Amino acid sequence: MSSDNKTSGATTVPDTKPPSPATQAGAISRWLAERLLDACGRAPLRITLWDGTQVPAQLAAPVATMRVNTRAALTRLLIHPDLYFGEDFMAGAIDVDGDLVKFLEAVYTGGEQADAVGPLRRAAQNLMSRRRSNSLSGSRSNIHHHYDIGNDFYQLWLDRVAMQYTCAYFAHPEATLEEAQVAKMDHVCRKLRLKPGEFVIEAGCGWGGLARHMARHYGVRVRAFNISREQVRFARERAAQEGLDNQIEYIEDDYRNISGSCDCFVSVGMLEHVGPENYREMGDVLQRILPQHGRGLIHTIGRNCSAPMNAWIEKRIFPGARPPSLREMMDIFEHHDFSVLDVENLRLHYAETLRHWLARFEAHQDEIHGMFDERFIRTWRLYLAGSIASFTTGYLQLFQVLFAPGKNNDVPMTRDHLYSVSNHS
Amino acid sequence: MSSDNKTSGATTVPDTKPPSPATQAGAISRWLAERLLDACGRAPLRITLWDGTQVPAQLAAPVATMRVNTRAALTRLLIHPDLYFGEDFMAGAIDVDGDLVKFLEAVYTGGEQADAVGPLRRAAQNLMSRRRSNSLSGSRSNIHHHYDIGNDFYQLWLDRVAMQYTCAYFAHPEATLEEAQVAKMDHVCRKLRLKPGEFVIEAGCGWGGLARHMARHYGVRVRAFNISREQVRFARERAAQEGLDNQIEYIEDDYRNISGSCDCFVSVGMLEHVGPENYREMGDVLQRILPQHGRGLIHTIGRNCSAPMNAWIEKRIFPGARPPSLREMMDIFEHHDFSVLDVENLRLHYAETLRHWLARFEAHQDEIHGMFDERFIRTWRLYLAGSIASFTTGYLQLFQVLFAPGKNNDVPMTRDHLYSVSNHS
Repeated sequence: MSSDNKTSGATTVPDTKPPSPATQAGAISRWLAERLLDACGRAPLRITLWDGTQVPAQLAAPVATMRVNTRAALTRLLIHPDLYFGEDFMAGAIDVDGDLVKFLEAVYTGGEQADAVGPLRRAAQNLMSRRRSNSLSGSRSNIHHHYDIGNDFYQLWLDRVAMQYTCAYFAHPEATLEEAQVAKMDHVCRKLRLKPGEFVIEAGCGWGGLARHMARHYGVRVRAFNISREQVRFARERAAQEGLDNQIEYIEDDYRNISGSCDCFVSVGMLEHVGPENYREMGDVLQRILPQHGRGLIHTIGRNCSAPMNAWIEKRIFPGARPPSLREMMDIFEHHDFSVLDVENLRLHYAETLRHWLARFEAHQDEIHGMFDERFIRTWRLYLAGSIASFTTGYLQLFQVLFAPGKNNDVPMTRDHLYSVSNHS
Repeated sequence: MSSDNKTSGATTVPDTKPPSPATQAGAISRWLAERLLDACGRAPLRITLWDGTQVPAQLAAPVATMRVNTRAALTRLLIHPDLYFGEDFMAGAIDVDGDLVKFLEAVYTGGEQADAVGPLRRAAQNLMSRRRSNSLSGSRSNIHHHYDIGNDFYQLWLDRVAMQYTCAYFAHPEATLEEAQVAKMDHVCRKLRLKPGEFVIEAGCGWGGLARHMARHYGVRVRAFNISREQVRFARERAAQEGLDNQIEYIEDDYRNISGSCDCFVSVGMLEHVGPENYREMGDVLQRILPQHGRGLIHTIGRNCSAPMNAWIEKRIFPGARPPSLREMMDIFEHHDFSVLDVENLRLHYAETLRHWLARFEAHQDEIHGMFDERFIRTWRLYLAGSIASFTTGYLQLFQVLFAPGKNNDVPMTRDHLYSVSNHS
């Protein structure tokens, strides 16, 4: 585990000292709190200010109550809610009493229905939020920030089969997280119609679980790329333990440096970190490595239309991240005559995946308190709950895009094969 | 049947008078024919000139032989092959001996692999080809050109169940055209998850077969729009004969004039005629008519990247037509927060559909000769054969795009329901 976890980002923590009892909220603060509720489309939420003032004064059954513990936090919320709600929640200057996910869903849904000033303010805010660069060195730094904070931590709440830190596939509502992650890997492998002996290049392999699954159950050889040092170390150890290291090569390098030729390309949960400015170059890589009979699949968080990532998530959780719209994704495919064969939107599966993760995260509070400080825990709680709300309210999508070179006629006529009985034991 | 069929477009027919036997091809013509083969990527094709000269002089097993019957036709082929191959084939100045589809596949595939001058020349050609306008009156004229040439003609070679003039769905390789068209309609209905009593708006309903199928087998009410007078007349008669006129209203009007509210929107084979410049307005229509629980499906011929329609097809077959790329289609969805749920590419199904149509078209030559002149028959033979080659070589795609308002969470978690046993008797 890296030693800088407890202090990461601490330089810009907002003022968190408890308010003086003498500091009365007053008419202006109440008026500002009302404007905040306006900006949330008058969703049935209660705001409690630092002196106990409740806004609105009467509300029968609020979805949840947001406690704003300082005057400064209230002001910041009105200036740039996307960023400062997270900053102040993280620091304890804002709390939510009640169900955090339901609170965020109400805010997201209400906010979109609110006044027309919204888009203008949002545009101004987006100008203020400069996304971190995804140059070769920028990407390395961005990925280190999130994925190298400790394999022990992730093992506490990800599935125990393959440590998949991406959307699972709940083929049945009662599936466990472990079953759903296996089903996701099989869904991907079946879409690609992997055949024994084929060679697969994977970009952004996480802890290597999909590569091991493909090697073990589909008999393919895999070369898997990742720029997270901690993840690659873990993946190599695990492959060696499982006797799969003769089939899998984990490489600590950037997708832009992929060379050679393969039968299939797969990337699950990396494109979010690539940035649309690099999609064309990614297409160039695919053009280099995929022969006419090749197939590819990209699994990524996406958007209904082009828009920056939530500012706080980009700042604190995923620096450099930008989920693409389908329009933006086409920049990968259309310059080299790739055919898009199948797009599936699994948005609600990600909400369900995140519910499992959040429940396990909460269930392991004791261990996590031994690893990180309260600020870290509040940050992650908000990130996981906010992500659930993002998928349930349609703020985020999850696209699986299957593609092939335009001249590849060896593509299945139907998708029946995805829905027949499992084809591996 | 309208009376202008035999003369449509006759004003610009190239010179077709038989060459004088004394007109020897000569070295320049042989050189030009060689350049033509270069432009086809040296595909194994033979060119026979008007005096019997063969280019190349030696070729063991040509895919097919193109006979160029006049010097003018040879020159025109080099200037703008996309347009003049069709023009001169139609007029009899060019013939193809052998399999017309295989010949066109070789030309399409070879042409793309040919020299880098290709894209430049293509750009210049595209400037020369001005697509017909899809204004309200322009669309009416464009649609009349193709769809009002006679229901009797289309009945000869389309399926006998529902007169579907769009891509069928071959759930099994041995399916008949009739079975495959029923399967296509069911595939669409299942994607939309139609429920009895729901109200469907259809844009571009052809001869009304899908509307009747939805009404009969899924118990929905349908309001179906079309600007082809002949098709609407036929559709109304058929619905009355089948006792479905209490469930279906066929309206002779443009999709831009659709109003009201519906549970589902469906459009099969219309978007090709809309033009990307009108997609945003089409999105506005969808936004007006689809409530939060709504769903929509657009089935359209498409492209891997944005490009004009083949110039000859746009001139002679489908004036105003422009199959979209997926990027272009996003203009329909992304301004109003529609979520794309599912994209399926059925390109090879359209090739198979067209093979059935061409075989039936050829089998009914006697009847068709009684309806139209030789020029019409050559035009349609090239159009059908060329369309097969377009889909087999990846020049054209067929996209089914399922979408819903971004806040609609009543979407199925998986696509299993599309692949279970038929849900209507």
